[in-house]
Amino acid sequence: MKEIFLVTQNLPAAGQLVIGGSAARHISRVLRHTAGDRVMVTDGHGTELTVELSAVSATRVEGKVLGQRLRPREPRHSVVLAQALLKGDKLAEVVETVTELGVVEVIPFVSRRTVAQLSSGRLKRLYHVAASGLETAMRTVLPRISDCVVFNGLLERISAAGQALVAYEGETRQGIDDVLDADADSVLLVVGPEGGFSDDEVDRMKQAGAETFSLGPRRLRAETAAAVAVALCLQRFGDLG
Amino acid sequence: MKEIFLVTQNLPAAGQLVIGGSAARHISRVLRHTAGDRVMVTDGHGTELTVELSAVSATRVEGKVLGQRLRPREPRHSVVLAQALLKGDKLAEVVETVTELGVVEVIPFVSRRTVAQLSSGRLKRLYHVAASGLETAMRTVLPRISDCVVFNGLLERISAAGQALVAYEGETRQGIDDVLDADADSVLLVVGPEGGFSDDEVDRMKQAGAETFSLGPRRLRAETAAAVAVALCLQRFGDLG
Repeated sequence: MKEIFLVTQNLPAAGQLVIGGSAARHISRVLRHTAGDRVMVTDGHGTELTVELSAVSATRVEGKVLGQRLRPREPRHSVVLAQALLKGDKLAEVVETVTELGVVEVIPFVSRRTVAQLSSGRLKRLYHVAASGLETAMRTVLPRISDCVVFNGLLERISAAGQALVAYEGETRQGIDDVLDADADSVLLVVGPEGGFSDDEVDRMKQAGAETFSLGPRRLRAETAAAVAVALCLQRFGDLG
Repeated sequence: MKEIFLVTQNLPAAGQLVIGGSAARHISRVLRHTAGDRVMVTDGHGTELTVELSAVSATRVEGKVLGQRLRPREPRHSVVLAQALLKGDKLAEVVETVTELGVVEVIPFVSRRTVAQLSSGRLKRLYHVAASGLETAMRTVLPRISDCVVFNGLLERISAAGQALVAYEGETRQGIDDVLDADADSVLLVVGPEGGFSDDEVDRMKQAGAETFSLGPRRLRAETAAAVAVALCLQRFGDLG
């Protein structure tokens, strides 16, 4: 199975590449690569290098750059997910899944019925989960995990977005395909906490420019709704299969 | 928030209903319903009753049937998911998610690269997970959890299906919308194990009548692929939102 390694360094377009840190340990010890193997490396900002390894140790991996590609396998459209904090480990689950699917950013937020909290340790864990999701999905862009915002901060993001769509249980007339402008470059998707949004919150999001959509008559857990909304947008954009 | 309770008994279309067992305990003790409350009850075979409770104890709940509905909130199309066994608790995760989304059956199967096993205890747990997913999603049809089949058993199901579609990493030309016949009544979706299918297995599924589809250039975990494939089919059928 093919692998890609995320490194936190600037990547040369050609010549020699030296990798240290946890990526070196991962390449050498976990995946047991040796000199002569070809691996892929990404900086998480869209650059992918194919590298032929020439020297491998636990702390230092060196190789020759054979080729460079920009943003292979990335969606052409930008999908951003604003997700209310969720109980337990569910926000991490969401970050992992939507990273695989292809989002460029996740914005955690707090609304009236949000009961979960986000400690700095947990926020940090979300970065690791996104990095892991990138490697699973062979992506070359690492989604940005934004700092947690309060509801007014979410409204600002909605106002600034080209289009913003809110998954809402109370919406019965329109599905995501009815409201998504598939010719746009990007979309901000908003998914609430376990208890949903209050009517007042929905009104304020609409005033900020958002539209609501239904994911059908069956009630979905927030984590299911997030994954499905992202997948349906990417599908409609032509970025999934 | 609205609730529905799954009971394992025949439901009268009118008159009095008496509920015992774990559903009675759930209604009385966990959700603390009392006489006068209205609740919804389903048999998991499509019948939903609205019941006004008249007497509530920990072991026996009695009420008057106010109304009956058949298959409310159910998709009009039958989506069946054949899912290879997955490591850890991932098959249960898949069952929970696709039950919420609206499948009518999950068929666990074993293929060449399947490394997980399914004990009778674990199979039993899948029933409970499906029951829980039904109540979460307010469904009225409990998905059937079939016995685990070997690969030849899967091929028989593919042959018998009106249409069978296989999520396949090696497919690069066609997405699910290219191969799904949205005018059909049903679809059998097939998702492989962590290591994917062998070329030989894909050939045999095609010979049995299946078509392959891609979920895009990013590599998805099996559990993500299963949820996304089910959601995309239901969306295309017009059964999601």
